[in-house]
Amino acid sequence: MTHSPARTGADLLCEALLAQGVDHCFANPGTSEMHFVAALDRQPRMRCVLGLSEGVVTGAADGYARMAERPASTLLHTGPGLANGLANLHNARRACTPMVNVVGDHATHHAEHDAPLASDIESLARPMSHWVARSTSAAGLGELAAQAVQEAATPPGRIATLILPADHAWSPVDVPAPPLRPRPQPLPPREAALAEAAAALRQPGAVLMIAGRALRDEGLTLAARVCATTGARLLTQQANARIERGLGRVMIDRVPYVVSQALATLKDTRCLVSVGAKAPVGFFAYPGKPSSMLPPGCPVVVASTPEEDGVAALRELAARCGAGADAHRPMLAQRRDLPLPTGALTAAAVAQAVVALMPEQAIVCDESVSSGRDFFPLSWHAAPHDYLQLTGGAIGLGLPLATGAAIAAPQRKVITLQADGSAMYTLPALWTQARERLDVVTVIFSNRRYAILHGEYAQVGAGAPGANARRLFDLVDPALDWVKLAQGLGVEAARADTAERFGDVLASALKRSGPFLVEAVI
Amino acid sequence: MTHSPARTGADLLCEALLAQGVDHCFANPGTSEMHFVAALDRQPRMRCVLGLSEGVVTGAADGYARMAERPASTLLHTGPGLANGLANLHNARRACTPMVNVVGDHATHHAEHDAPLASDIESLARPMSHWVARSTSAAGLGELAAQAVQEAATPPGRIATLILPADHAWSPVDVPAPPLRPRPQPLPPREAALAEAAAALRQPGAVLMIAGRALRDEGLTLAARVCATTGARLLTQQANARIERGLGRVMIDRVPYVVSQALATLKDTRCLVSVGAKAPVGFFAYPGKPSSMLPPGCPVVVASTPEEDGVAALRELAARCGAGADAHRPMLAQRRDLPLPTGALTAAAVAQAVVALMPEQAIVCDESVSSGRDFFPLSWHAAPHDYLQLTGGAIGLGLPLATGAAIAAPQRKVITLQADGSAMYTLPALWTQARERLDVVTVIFSNRRYAILHGEYAQVGAGAPGANARRLFDLVDPALDWVKLAQGLGVEAARADTAERFGDVLASALKRSGPFLVEAVI
Repeated sequence: MTHSPARTGADLLCEALLAQGVDHCFANPGTSEMHFVAALDRQPRMRCVLGLSEGVVTGAADGYARMAERPASTLLHTGPGLANGLANLHNARRACTPMVNVVGDHATHHAEHDAPLASDIESLARPMSHWVARSTSAAGLGELAAQAVQEAATPPGRIATLILPADHAWSPVDVPAPPLRPRPQPLPPREAALAEAAAALRQPGAVLMIAGRALRDEGLTLAARVCATTGARLLTQQANARIERGLGRVMIDRVPYVVSQALATLKDTRCLVSVGAKAPVGFFAYPGKPSSMLPPGCPVVVASTPEEDGVAALRELAARCGAGADAHRPMLAQRRDLPLPTGALTAAAVAQAVVALMPEQAIVCDESVSSGRDFFPLSWHAAPHDYLQLTGGAIGLGLPLATGAAIAAPQRKVITLQADGSAMYTLPALWTQARERLDVVTVIFSNRRYAILHGEYAQVGAGAPGANARRLFDLVDPALDWVKLAQGLGVEAARADTAERFGDVLASALKRSGPFLVEAVI
Repeated sequence: MTHSPARTGADLLCEALLAQGVDHCFANPGTSEMHFVAALDRQPRMRCVLGLSEGVVTGAADGYARMAERPASTLLHTGPGLANGLANLHNARRACTPMVNVVGDHATHHAEHDAPLASDIESLARPMSHWVARSTSAAGLGELAAQAVQEAATPPGRIATLILPADHAWSPVDVPAPPLRPRPQPLPPREAALAEAAAALRQPGAVLMIAGRALRDEGLTLAARVCATTGARLLTQQANARIERGLGRVMIDRVPYVVSQALATLKDTRCLVSVGAKAPVGFFAYPGKPSSMLPPGCPVVVASTPEEDGVAALRELAARCGAGADAHRPMLAQRRDLPLPTGALTAAAVAQAVVALMPEQAIVCDESVSSGRDFFPLSWHAAPHDYLQLTGGAIGLGLPLATGAAIAAPQRKVITLQADGSAMYTLPALWTQARERLDVVTVIFSNRRYAILHGEYAQVGAGAPGANARRLFDLVDPALDWVKLAQGLGVEAARADTAERFGDVLASALKRSGPFLVEAVI
């Protein structure tokens, strides 16, 4: 068989993605995707980034879109390839990240043969996708791709999964790619909802909970003014896709992860007014504890849904509450002289050093799980930065998220706060960081355990862990050597076991370019 | 909350698994599984093996069951945890491996709150499971577990997935675990099918294709006698869960992976007689090539289905064909003096050294993908061994499979033939090998590329790979350092880049106990 220059369905798909503004493809292809790869080869405008497992691919596409504010595509190989990427698709779905997944499948005529890699891709895709479609013809791939991008870009952001049979990819086509479609806009806020919300905010015990785009400077400032004027309390969700934080920005608290702390935080709430936020629920249920973190009977007033324009809603609420720019001034984060920590290296010392040393406009990707809880309350005093979080609880997001964020924002430094247990899920992301020469500094909280499970075992009332539980919770015997793991993947690394050493290593890591990993033995 | 000694649904589930003969639990638990972990703590008879990602967990459970011939259980955390394990569940399903998955979910009363980790577990589980059930009460968990084990153990072996809401795990129960149920047996072969098959085997151009349990000594010997008597040709599938191979055993060929070779192998076939085998189809479809590897119109006679007793079918066929023990003697593999290879290290040299040095009763786990194709035709001349293969095409099985096989057969040496690209999917399996001190020698075929994709790109007629394709196919810039990766996970390792050095390293690795990794730079 010789190379055929005929334009294929895969070319059409690739052209259509580019025409709709999707020019990054995070990929781990297989045989059924070879024609799509050939199409990518003919399209140097499409930047292809290889992930050495699909969890890297989908997590990086998430990080990219959170910073680029437009969807990337992924390229995944049949049902099992999609399956490997589902956990980070789950996180992306919870983050309202726009993403277009292209999942290659067997040629249509091959399906009846139940070849070894055949599986029910739709059933796998649906739980983590807002939209799933299977191509029905090569010539239809342009329209389908345009539709997928529209779906993905529909506010607040959706997961669109397009299943591509190999024969549609390889068949010749002569239809053009559809032109750029207008980007879907958020719905306008509803008058009645705003009126109800404005009234509720003036009542004692009101909490204004904001999420989504409202967590950037403009929304935060509007929300803070509303709260300063009405006396309502400003809060956000426990986990969010992206918050603008640091010096000079509005200080906003989040609902704590630990149920008893969340209940305590919200105990005086008489009404929750939501701007794109979910009413707070326990991350897990526990015997004898409530699922909702709000006091029993506490009403929830939805000022705007996630599909609506939260910033516009806040602008309206500010106007209705008389919270103009010259009204009460919200408290903004101010510099606090944070010395570099000394002595034993603890999770708190790591947080303190990162806050002290973080450069301007860093992007912090946080999958520090239990170890990183000291960082959030301190990081107001850090230089202005974007803060990206694990949103869906499916561990293994941190390293890929940072990888994608760095690709979207090459001029900014990315800092990953990464728990050791979770990092093992998508370790090969470090290799992509090395290959793409990304400016990412990874801090591994090396506590050599699933520390959160020790906490949760106590939380559920199971007492002290016995032999089987300890074998399931502790990452010892042998300990993981993070310096060697990073070096094995082409990333320079160093270990720190005192606060002084950690400060030194981090400072020099932040000054150099390219990826670096610090193992913080805490 | 203090420790409650009350017996819970989780205890009942654990007791029921043990009562049904399931005493290994490969696990990566989360918060919703804490009560099951507490139950495991109270049951020291249950051996708990931690995998640092769920692909390790399900792949190890597969390897365990292929050697132990009974199901292990897995413990997985909610939808995303299951999702991470699906690719190797897919392989296990294709291998007809018995397995019981316990997937923890939110408490039933928590479901309505759509907490961050909530997802449609059933939709995720079904494509890779034969049986999916959700617990409906704590007291019913004993019966449900017994049913799950029965389902899993139903020949030829099935994937049973049991969804466990946290409140069923934590609620008190006072019902006993059901007693051991009789293990389901394969169905007897059908008279009419055997008669048709016996007649077909005597025709010219007949191929006897066997699979499943028939690939152990007894079935192989019977099948070889049938073929020696009738003149039929003996073959097996391209991929199989387990074959007994090596010196003194029946030499059986398999259908090649490459379509042109498979078509050539089968071109003179006039009738295919199947004992538990699938009619051969292309692993993938290619433009202008057929899906079926059989000549057009070639009939397939099913002597026995996978659910039926293949060895009994072969015994019957032997009797009907007059192929007694004193009939034609099949050719058995004989020793061939294989010198240790010298010079440049190639995939063929690796195969030759492994064959020459392999100890008696080794277990070979093969995920060498394109690099290992030299091994199969050579390994007749190796000491008797079991040969376990990637069955479903979902890469990332090799290291976990070896881990589970070593746990099931602690007195035997396990040798993993592992492609580098595939190894990156489930790398943390090496850590479990270190922790459990397993006798596994891993050979990494370090060709620094997805070599199979280079081949497939040519196969589909896409020409020479361009810049984007090369960036997706080649694992260079940086190269992976397998010695450091292994050491980072607590496994000793060495690199070899000549045939002599490889022979030396492999020989010493096979003599020591505990895990070892050899990076074969080919």
